[in-house]
Amino acid sequence: MLDNAPWAPLAASALTIVLILIIAWVLRRVAHRVITKVVNRAATGGSLTSRFRKGIAVDSIDALLNERRRQRAETMGSVLKSVASVVILGTAALTVLDRLTIPIAPLLTSVGILGVAVGFGAQELVKDFIAGMFMLLEDQYGVGDVIDAGAAVGTVEAVTLRITRLRDADGRVWYVRNGTISRVGNESQGWSRAYVDVPVPYDADLVSVRAVLEHLGEELWADTEFREAKIVETPQVFGVEQLSDSSLVFRVSVKTVPAAQAEVSRELRLRIKTALDEAGIPLVAG
Amino acid sequence: MLDNAPWAPLAASALTIVLILIIAWVLRRVAHRVITKVVNRAATGGSLTSRFRKGIAVDSIDALLNERRRQRAETMGSVLKSVASVVILGTAALTVLDRLTIPIAPLLTSVGILGVAVGFGAQELVKDFIAGMFMLLEDQYGVGDVIDAGAAVGTVEAVTLRITRLRDADGRVWYVRNGTISRVGNESQGWSRAYVDVPVPYDADLVSVRAVLEHLGEELWADTEFREAKIVETPQVFGVEQLSDSSLVFRVSVKTVPAAQAEVSRELRLRIKTALDEAGIPLVAG
Amino acid sequence: MLDNAPWAPLAASALTIVLILIIAWVLRRVAHRVITKVVNRAATGGSLTSRFRKGIAVDSIDALLNERRRQRAETMGSVLKSVASVVILGTAALTVLDRLTIPIAPLLTSVGILGVAVGFGAQELVKDFIAGMFMLLEDQYGVGDVIDAGAAVGTVEAVTLRITRLRDADGRVWYVRNGTISRVGNESQGWSRAYVDVPVPYDADLVSVRAVLEHLGEELWADTEFREAKIVETPQVFGVEQLSDSSLVFRVSVKTVPAAQAEVSRELRLRIKTALDEAGIPLVAG
Amino acid sequence: MLDNAPWAPLAASALTIVLILIIAWVLRRVAHRVITKVVNRAATGGSLTSRFRKGIAVDSIDALLNERRRQRAETMGSVLKSVASVVILGTAALTVLDRLTIPIAPLLTSVGILGVAVGFGAQELVKDFIAGMFMLLEDQYGVGDVIDAGAAVGTVEAVTLRITRLRDADGRVWYVRNGTISRVGNESQGWSRAYVDVPVPYDADLVSVRAVLEHLGEELWADTEFREAKIVETPQVFGVEQLSDSSLVFRVSVKTVPAAQAEVSRELRLRIKTALDEAGIPLVAG
Amino acid sequence: MLDNAPWAPLAASALTIVLILIIAWVLRRVAHRVITKVVNRAATGGSLTSRFRKGIAVDSIDALLNERRRQRAETMGSVLKSVASVVILGTAALTVLDRLTIPIAPLLTSVGILGVAVGFGAQELVKDFIAGMFMLLEDQYGVGDVIDAGAAVGTVEAVTLRITRLRDADGRVWYVRNGTISRVGNESQGWSRAYVDVPVPYDADLVSVRAVLEHLGEELWADTEFREAKIVETPQVFGVEQLSDSSLVFRVSVKTVPAAQAEVSRELRLRIKTALDEAGIPLVAG
Amino acid sequence: MLDNAPWAPLAASALTIVLILIIAWVLRRVAHRVITKVVNRAATGGSLTSRFRKGIAVDSIDALLNERRRQRAETMGSVLKSVASVVILGTAALTVLDRLTIPIAPLLTSVGILGVAVGFGAQELVKDFIAGMFMLLEDQYGVGDVIDAGAAVGTVEAVTLRITRLRDADGRVWYVRNGTISRVGNESQGWSRAYVDVPVPYDADLVSVRAVLEHLGEELWADTEFREAKIVETPQVFGVEQLSDSSLVFRVSVKTVPAAQAEVSRELRLRIKTALDEAGIPLVAG
Amino acid sequence: MLDNAPWAPLAASALTIVLILIIAWVLRRVAHRVITKVVNRAATGGSLTSRFRKGIAVDSIDALLNERRRQRAETMGSVLKSVASVVILGTAALTVLDRLTIPIAPLLTSVGILGVAVGFGAQELVKDFIAGMFMLLEDQYGVGDVIDAGAAVGTVEAVTLRITRLRDADGRVWYVRNGTISRVGNESQGWSRAYVDVPVPYDADLVSVRAVLEHLGEELWADTEFREAKIVETPQVFGVEQLSDSSLVFRVSVKTVPAAQAEVSRELRLRIKTALDEAGIPLVAG
Repeated sequence: MLDNAPWAPLAASALTIVLILIIAWVLRRVAHRVITKVVNRAATGGSLTSRFRKGIAVDSIDALLNERRRQRAETMGSVLKSVASVVILGTAALTVLDRLTIPIAPLLTSVGILGVAVGFGAQELVKDFIAGMFMLLEDQYGVGDVIDAGAAVGTVEAVTLRITRLRDADGRVWYVRNGTISRVGNESQGWSRAYVDVPVPYDADLVSVRAVLEHLGEELWADTEFREAKIVETPQVFGVEQLSDSSLVFRVSVKTVPAAQAEVSRELRLRIKTALDEAGIPLVAG
Repeated sequence: MLDNAPWAPLAASALTIVLILIIAWVLRRVAHRVITKVVNRAATGGSLTSRFRKGIAVDSIDALLNERRRQRAETMGSVLKSVASVVILGTAALTVLDRLTIPIAPLLTSVGILGVAVGFGAQELVKDFIAGMFMLLEDQYGVGDVIDAGAAVGTVEAVTLRITRLRDADGRVWYVRNGTISRVGNESQGWSRAYVDVPVPYDADLVSVRAVLEHLGEELWADTEFREAKIVETPQVFGVEQLSDSSLVFRVSVKTVPAAQAEVSRELRLRIKTALDEAGIPLVAG
Repeated sequence: MLDNAPWAPLAASALTIVLILIIAWVLRRVAHRVITKVVNRAATGGSLTSRFRKGIAVDSIDALLNERRRQRAETMGSVLKSVASVVILGTAALTVLDRLTIPIAPLLTSVGILGVAVGFGAQELVKDFIAGMFMLLEDQYGVGDVIDAGAAVGTVEAVTLRITRLRDADGRVWYVRNGTISRVGNESQGWSRAYVDVPVPYDADLVSVRAVLEHLGEELWADTEFREAKIVETPQVFGVEQLSDSSLVFRVSVKTVPAAQAEVSRELRLRIKTALDEAGIPLVAG
Repeated sequence: MLDNAPWAPLAASALTIVLILIIAWVLRRVAHRVITKVVNRAATGGSLTSRFRKGIAVDSIDALLNERRRQRAETMGSVLKSVASVVILGTAALTVLDRLTIPIAPLLTSVGILGVAVGFGAQELVKDFIAGMFMLLEDQYGVGDVIDAGAAVGTVEAVTLRITRLRDADGRVWYVRNGTISRVGNESQGWSRAYVDVPVPYDADLVSVRAVLEHLGEELWADTEFREAKIVETPQVFGVEQLSDSSLVFRVSVKTVPAAQAEVSRELRLRIKTALDEAGIPLVAG
Repeated sequence: MLDNAPWAPLAASALTIVLILIIAWVLRRVAHRVITKVVNRAATGGSLTSRFRKGIAVDSIDALLNERRRQRAETMGSVLKSVASVVILGTAALTVLDRLTIPIAPLLTSVGILGVAVGFGAQELVKDFIAGMFMLLEDQYGVGDVIDAGAAVGTVEAVTLRITRLRDADGRVWYVRNGTISRVGNESQGWSRAYVDVPVPYDADLVSVRAVLEHLGEELWADTEFREAKIVETPQVFGVEQLSDSSLVFRVSVKTVPAAQAEVSRELRLRIKTALDEAGIPLVAG
Repeated sequence: MLDNAPWAPLAASALTIVLILIIAWVLRRVAHRVITKVVNRAATGGSLTSRFRKGIAVDSIDALLNERRRQRAETMGSVLKSVASVVILGTAALTVLDRLTIPIAPLLTSVGILGVAVGFGAQELVKDFIAGMFMLLEDQYGVGDVIDAGAAVGTVEAVTLRITRLRDADGRVWYVRNGTISRVGNESQGWSRAYVDVPVPYDADLVSVRAVLEHLGEELWADTEFREAKIVETPQVFGVEQLSDSSLVFRVSVKTVPAAQAEVSRELRLRIKTALDEAGIPLVAG
Repeated sequence: MLDNAPWAPLAASALTIVLILIIAWVLRRVAHRVITKVVNRAATGGSLTSRFRKGIAVDSIDALLNERRRQRAETMGSVLKSVASVVILGTAALTVLDRLTIPIAPLLTSVGILGVAVGFGAQELVKDFIAGMFMLLEDQYGVGDVIDAGAAVGTVEAVTLRITRLRDADGRVWYVRNGTISRVGNESQGWSRAYVDVPVPYDADLVSVRAVLEHLGEELWADTEFREAKIVETPQVFGVEQLSDSSLVFRVSVKTVPAAQAEVSRELRLRIKTALDEAGIPLVAG
């Protein structure tokens, strides 16, 4: 039958091609929609961290989190949509070429050789993107957080799927590839803790040292400049951390608002020094 | 025969397609059921740890463990079900396309190239999931446990198949990828042990030192605030751990309830100092 | 011929399928039997360690070793049987599908893509299982042994094909993946050795120091609390290990029963201190 | 039909070949245009860093950044164009050979074997190029910046897709492969921070020390040689950083223009020494 | 022809199958013979070490080496024979199945997928075996040698193709995988060397110190308890190894029989101390 | 048509073969020419370093650089030509075999298996060659340069595509594989910098110390033995590098000709000591 | 035609097989000849090191180098010849089997699966051989040289393609795999350099110290026991290497014959001590 109607294959081909293109276009739209929905749902309510943060959230933090959520959804969505488009349109193109009886083997060969060559080297890139994707999905950190990314410690200035940009305490700007971050420590979630070790002489009166330190903790908690604004609970005096022939080390610990531990411990040190001076208890080499 | 009945292939195809879809649907349901059963059995009774914990379990711990078991079963099941669905439905789709004589080679090529490209980079992801799966299966740790995950040490706040979220003593929140955890140390299973090293002068009376320390141990065990609540056996005085020209080091050891070793050893240090002061035995640089 | 007898292919197919299933069932049974036999033989008499241990084995140790042997055979056998079943039944299923002229290419494609994707990530898992298999086969350690697994040191609490569970001296429970253990040190096989270094002053009488230490060694060996129960030979006095302007270091060495070296060396230190005190020889900083 | 007209296949082939060559030529031009556009857009406005730098940009910096932008676009474009040309022309060549019924299998075999052999070893090369590409795209650093590339720290002298050339403080020229740089610290973006630790005696008057240091900070800020030219805000006196029996450590911190921290801290040290000398406050071992 | 004689293919197949099985059986025997011969030759005369050892070999050592040679040949041969059998019989089986027109593709698919999955994980195993094979072939060490295997140092207790079992000085038994041993240090081949550093005061008479030490070396060589039995040449006095304001360090060196260096140097230290005491030359801190 | 003329295929084959050989020969010549040109251009003008060096180049350096350029072009060209020849001639050979209807599958199989086996192990080799190729192309270093190659530091004695041969300060000759060099530090490009730290007592007169050091710098610059020949600018006195209770550290810095920093700093130290002695300012422990 | 002459294919096959075997035999001989020639040329004149050594070569060294050259050529040739034989004969065997219409697919499958399984694990082995091959080709070291192979330092006792056997100063024999040696330091090529640091008091007369040291250097050079036999140039006195409040460090440097630096520096230290004693200049702690 086909041999008798020379136009038949062409017509059939044309029809098939149109059909393929329509299907591809529809599929692509559907894929994009699905991605948008999934990503929005993932960004909005699903992540562990956002729920965790709500506990201490005030209105402005909520607004900030909403903005971060929107950005995350957008960043993730754009890459997934690109991938979906490339796969669907690439498949459609190859099918059309095949239908036109144009040999696609040479093309596949060229692309394949290039693909393998690049593939080996591009692993790291894909690793970075996957790491970035999940990092966003799990909302591990955002702009403004103080994080420890292993390779660098500092304040996050920008987050993309491939890299995280930090600025450290010396003003150095760090570009860290997401795939090289095997664990992240975020200092800006919930609370931080400040420790001050107080080495007193071996023959100091343990009871009065403890009393001085505990009184000082209550003072700090009473201080409106610190309470709630910088610390979130009364400082605690732990027992004897270390024991030697020359000194006994007391430890004072206090929960602070996120990333305020350095400032609080500096203030604590000053006050402890003054209070012990007043009580006539000297400090010794720790 | 086929050439004579032009509708025959179509009819055959249609029939085959319906058959394929039905089989796929049935298979998927069966797979899900099997997964549910297997996962539940694995989570309920099979894990080593849960059996181990029963030894010291009280009612509330049992309830907690039941809840953890349920969550683990759910987490593991959801991923396995997704994988099963994707494989079964993907195979069905390809078979249908093949039956419709639509060429699937171009599609496979596109997906294949993408698959290889992503595959190299996604190894780490798969590794994380497999590690997480087995970690849950073996119940290595759960929310609330204090663990040493190598990259970070702290209290577990959340466990997913990909990451474990910890909070360390400084309040820093750590996100650790499960695949990077080659060994886990769990401090919250059964008991912990506190050690206090007591360096006494070279010419101290060994017998009386030992007596003081042993008496102190019995006192602690008699103290209702510690017995059972914080320590689980009478503190033991080990012999001479170290021998030099200036000091002899005695070691006091005590089994505590999980993760209470820091608190107990602080109390011990304080009491030893007081007791030795009373007995007139000085401490020296260890 | 085939075209004339339409039922022929069907009948042939049905026959072939039945044949295939029977063969598969037979093969599977044979494979399981072979595995059981091989594993039992491997666990019973072949391993180096069990033969080594016999040297010091008493009845109770023999019973323990028999139990360990049985468990090892079971653990190894179960996995090998699962693998054999999957291969034989999978092959049979594919052959049947093929005979039914159902296209298996799409199925293979789906499974293949998934297989490669997972394969990369699952290497570690397979590595763990292979390592665990050989570890069991060679009986490197068992429950109750004190081992150094690199990542953690402690008493083995459980051994599976994937992980080894240890409890260290602080009560921390460690889960170590078998594949990450490149070398294992087992302290519970045969004997251990305790060392005590004795630093005496530069002008001490070498002959009398040696005499004191040797006499003390004989006393310990004569002490029924230690002989056989804790130590397995008379303590030996090695010569001068170190030479400086302030001290000469003698070393006392003694073979103990497995894992008793800490206890024995503590006792030794105490006795050496007392004996040298009596002999009027002071100890100096080592 | 084809069998009857012997010239037909040749004519058809000739036609096809011409068509292929035309399409290849068109495609190549289109690809180059697209690359030029995309790269220009990426280099011009999209990068995070350039937007960030604008904040402190003066005219000359703008000119510099424009030049850098142009160079980046060119460097990236040239490689992408080469790749596009090779793929398109290679495919065209293979298709032509195929149409001429010249067997291409042997050629593919030779190239394939060579490709695999080289591919394994060339991974690092591809990695370097991909890293360099993204580094340029994200404008992580440029000629003249002081960077910490891990393997070496110094001033960037040249940037290519494969390597970055630095000169360190000792005059040593470093060639660092881009792929080996897992994180980059750029000291020339925005600002740097200088720290000077001031250890004062334990019994020093804390209030007057702080007063001296604060007064000194204001003086420096008032000094036109430093204000704006070298420092960008008034130096700040942090509280007590460290606390021991011999000293109290105050920390002075000041934001400087990029990479001026060494110079500023040297000047600060000199001034602090002089000021404390005048105030009669000695420095102690920190 | 084949279509006319229905029994022909069957007969031909049967014949071919018999032929295949005979060839396989013959090949296997030939392969085993060749392996036995090659391995024996490799173990007997070819290895570098055995020739080296002959230099100091006495009869009993020769017997020992012969036994070691026989064991090595056996260990290596058994694995190679297994591999040869599996390849030859596997090929024969597949060829027979193929001749019987049973489809072998599904079988190959199952085995292939399993093979790839396991292959990745089993690399380490193959690496261990290859390393063990060459280690035996080159006779790097044997039971009773004291070796440094990197991960552990001790006396070899057992050698298999996969692991080496050592016992260290503390009695700990180490299982080291052969593939993880990148370099081995064998202390039991030929000779060892003992060093003793002798720090004398800055103003000591260099000539008389040297004389004392040289005289002592000759005495040791004259001592029949040491000569030949423990040391293999007269101890040598090296010049001034180190030069400072407080001391001059002389070094005494002596070649001992393998692994006797610790014992010899202990004796040397004792004698040097005594000799210098007699000569009135004090030792100082080195 | 072909079936009727039995000689036709042979004739066609012969013709094709001759054609193939001619094309191969032509292609090979063209490839060699192109390689020669490209390599020459790359070596002559394109590299960053050669342009950089011109800045301080005198005639003899120019001659040296020309020689180095010629050698580099030759080294790179020879390998590329070998690769091109192998690919072109290999393809031609396979095509000829194919045309002669000789089965090439077995050959490809043998070569393929060998290729894969070797390929894995040869990665390092290819990596070395690629690294060497780019190193030459970018003219990172040449014979006579003093470089820091990570694994070894010394003077380059020879450069091949696979290794770099260095001789270090102790006369040790190092063979470093190019692929293991991730970053190179070249001390012989442009200039080096010598630093001398001068610790003066805490109460020293800062102004007069600075004056002494600056005067000394000018003297050195005036010294014709040093100016231009060894140093390339007046030595600079940096401010106070370090601040403690016992000393103030001044730093003197001077740009020298490449690799002369050790010699210059030795001379500087001697002069500073003498000058400060004369000025009555003592040095203290830094 | 073929169908009509039943014996034709057989005859043709027989002929082809004979032809194949003859070609294989010829090819193998040619390959061996080529390898012999290439390897001889590579070993004789081409290597960098041998040319370098000629500079200081005496007759006996030339003989030694000739012997080493011959051995190297043999070692390299034997492996290359084996590889060539295996490839040529394997290809011939497969081609013959193919001609005999024996199905070779099952054989290839078996060998292929085994090949992949072993290939992964054997990478290290191939790496070792390739490293050894190039090491020999470049004559990096030979028996009798003192080398630093990273994992071990000592005198080379044997070199094979897979391992290098060293004996270190303590008499320990090291087996180092060639592939694990990323860089080699050879101390036996050309010359070595001995350094002695001479710390003199801060107030010592620099001129007279220098004079004493320089005089001593000339004496050593005049000493026929050292000149040419042990040192190859007059010892040089470098300037002040280090500068502190307590000492000035002079450095004396001397080029020695290869590997004689320890012996020469010991002698130098003794002479410097004596000479400074005579000159009344004390040494201080460096």
